[in-house]
Amino acid sequence: MKATAKANTNIALIKYWGKRDENLFLPMNSSISITLDKFYTITTVEFKEKLDSDIFILNKNIESNSERDKVSRFLDRIRKRTGTNLHAEIISENKVPTAAGFASSASGFAALAAAASKSLNLDLDKKDISILARQGSGSASRSIYGGFVEWQKGIQKDGQDSFAKPLLSEKDWNISILSVVVASKEKNVSSREGMKRTIETSPFYSGWLSTVEKDLVMVREAINAQDFERLGEVVEGNALKMHATMLGAEPPVLYWQSGTMEVIHYIQSLRLSGIPVYLTIDAGPNVKVLCLPTDEKRIYESLLSLPSVKEVITCHPGEGITYL
Amino acid sequence: MKATAKANTNIALIKYWGKRDENLFLPMNSSISITLDKFYTITTVEFKEKLDSDIFILNKNIESNSERDKVSRFLDRIRKRTGTNLHAEIISENKVPTAAGFASSASGFAALAAAASKSLNLDLDKKDISILARQGSGSASRSIYGGFVEWQKGIQKDGQDSFAKPLLSEKDWNISILSVVVASKEKNVSSREGMKRTIETSPFYSGWLSTVEKDLVMVREAINAQDFERLGEVVEGNALKMHATMLGAEPPVLYWQSGTMEVIHYIQSLRLSGIPVYLTIDAGPNVKVLCLPTDEKRIYESLLSLPSVKEVITCHPGEGITYL
Repeated sequence: MKATAKANTNIALIKYWGKRDENLFLPMNSSISITLDKFYTITTVEFKEKLDSDIFILNKNIESNSERDKVSRFLDRIRKRTGTNLHAEIISENKVPTAAGFASSASGFAALAAAASKSLNLDLDKKDISILARQGSGSASRSIYGGFVEWQKGIQKDGQDSFAKPLLSEKDWNISILSVVVASKEKNVSSREGMKRTIETSPFYSGWLSTVEKDLVMVREAINAQDFERLGEVVEGNALKMHATMLGAEPPVLYWQSGTMEVIHYIQSLRLSGIPVYLTIDAGPNVKVLCLPTDEKRIYESLLSLPSVKEVITCHPGEGITYL
Repeated sequence: MKATAKANTNIALIKYWGKRDENLFLPMNSSISITLDKFYTITTVEFKEKLDSDIFILNKNIESNSERDKVSRFLDRIRKRTGTNLHAEIISENKVPTAAGFASSASGFAALAAAASKSLNLDLDKKDISILARQGSGSASRSIYGGFVEWQKGIQKDGQDSFAKPLLSEKDWNISILSVVVASKEKNVSSREGMKRTIETSPFYSGWLSTVEKDLVMVREAINAQDFERLGEVVEGNALKMHATMLGAEPPVLYWQSGTMEVIHYIQSLRLSGIPVYLTIDAGPNVKVLCLPTDEKRIYESLLSLPSVKEVITCHPGEGITYL
């Protein structure tokens, strides 16, 4: 009745942007990500007799009811499946600096799905855990696997064909991902709200869906061929396109800050000087820089010298879920 | 055989973005602008016997052959029409700070069209001058009239129905336009190239065309009702959408600099504090801020205090072409 799992977070190369089902977290488009080695969540779930409700302890703090309720709603899906009505104690250690713009929900729900299902002896395979994790947070479906991962959008209404698949192991291709922190203040529009508003009001959303299919094909090929420049070019373009769709929303959604722009132009100037370096940006102001391990150190140092850069954290492809 | 005309530049509220005919400067969509009082071109054209070629003197400097050739090609259209083969001396005084991101081509070709046609006694009405000016630079078609102006895209292949019409005189509605200079370096992609690449490669261009029609309706109504807040909201959204279409181009076109982003966020924060203030951005890094004359002074001063702002120039609606 007790299990512990660790899951790493991931960074999307081809972005998940828009849901076709808000309840089941079914996406409008497939997405591709890299699972990272540095940021993770370790979660222990123990179902216990004599608990009146779930208890959620995050980084040694008992979380508020509203945070606990998110976890409880997720556990309800598992309870329903197993027929149990026991409550659980959930103890999480979260090593994801939310200021760095990494979604802690990806590693959080991946670890929770793995630990909770194991604690109830559900005997799920990775595909099933991916489907389960997806129902807590879409991007969590990808953190089940290590390295380069694709979350296939699926077409079924019940979401049973919407899960992640590994493309290339973290052991097979090492690239560097530098997380560049330019602003630490809370963003004013959540990703969930940003996506929803974009789908509902942006005249660019259909253009996004048409172009993302082509981007997926090119990124799969680039990963398969381990062609870094081809990968980077499509990845950077895809991120800019995602942000473009939001600028068309009513009212517009703009996550970029002046520091974001400084880093974008700096990376583009490095590239003009001959260094293969690219960027991606999630729904927030921070920039993630992709480069080859041989260039990692000098790019890290030069980024730190930019006026608006507060912190740079270097990551590499990491492994999928593990049980502790 | 000699005439002098003055034309003011203009700032687009609903952007001209994309040509359906590169040679005749026929636009994909209609656009709406304000002719400004501060920035202008005064041009004297004199057709003379015994000249082997045209001579183009701009701000007291004899221009290079390539610059002169642009003017000559434009005059060829008029020469063809009148049957003359005389060459001309063109003397222009250009009071448009190109660093401020105003297109000097708008006032330049408007003044040139007016002066050249008058010097040959062509007796054109304003509509004809607008059609003529358009063939030098699309936005020049709008500088023929003062105040709020619409350039109707037209549908004919020969462009004879693609010209500007006045919507509201500069005397009827005074608003303030603050030109905020954040960067003076040459932009790396010309507007002409930016629009071409967008039409040819951006998945968002069809979304732009569908949304611009709605924006035109709303801006016409707002101008008619002199409803500043309604105007500002659509204008700001339209500019962000134009820039969004470019982010989807291959390779992406990004005119924004970190200073651009600083000003955008600052204006949006002023608005959150209750001040009716909006912005628009042309194909460049500088921002044009729209506000009411009663708020002009304090917004001007607060903009000047931003770290990345180099200069702020206050404009108001100005008159159309005049003959001197």
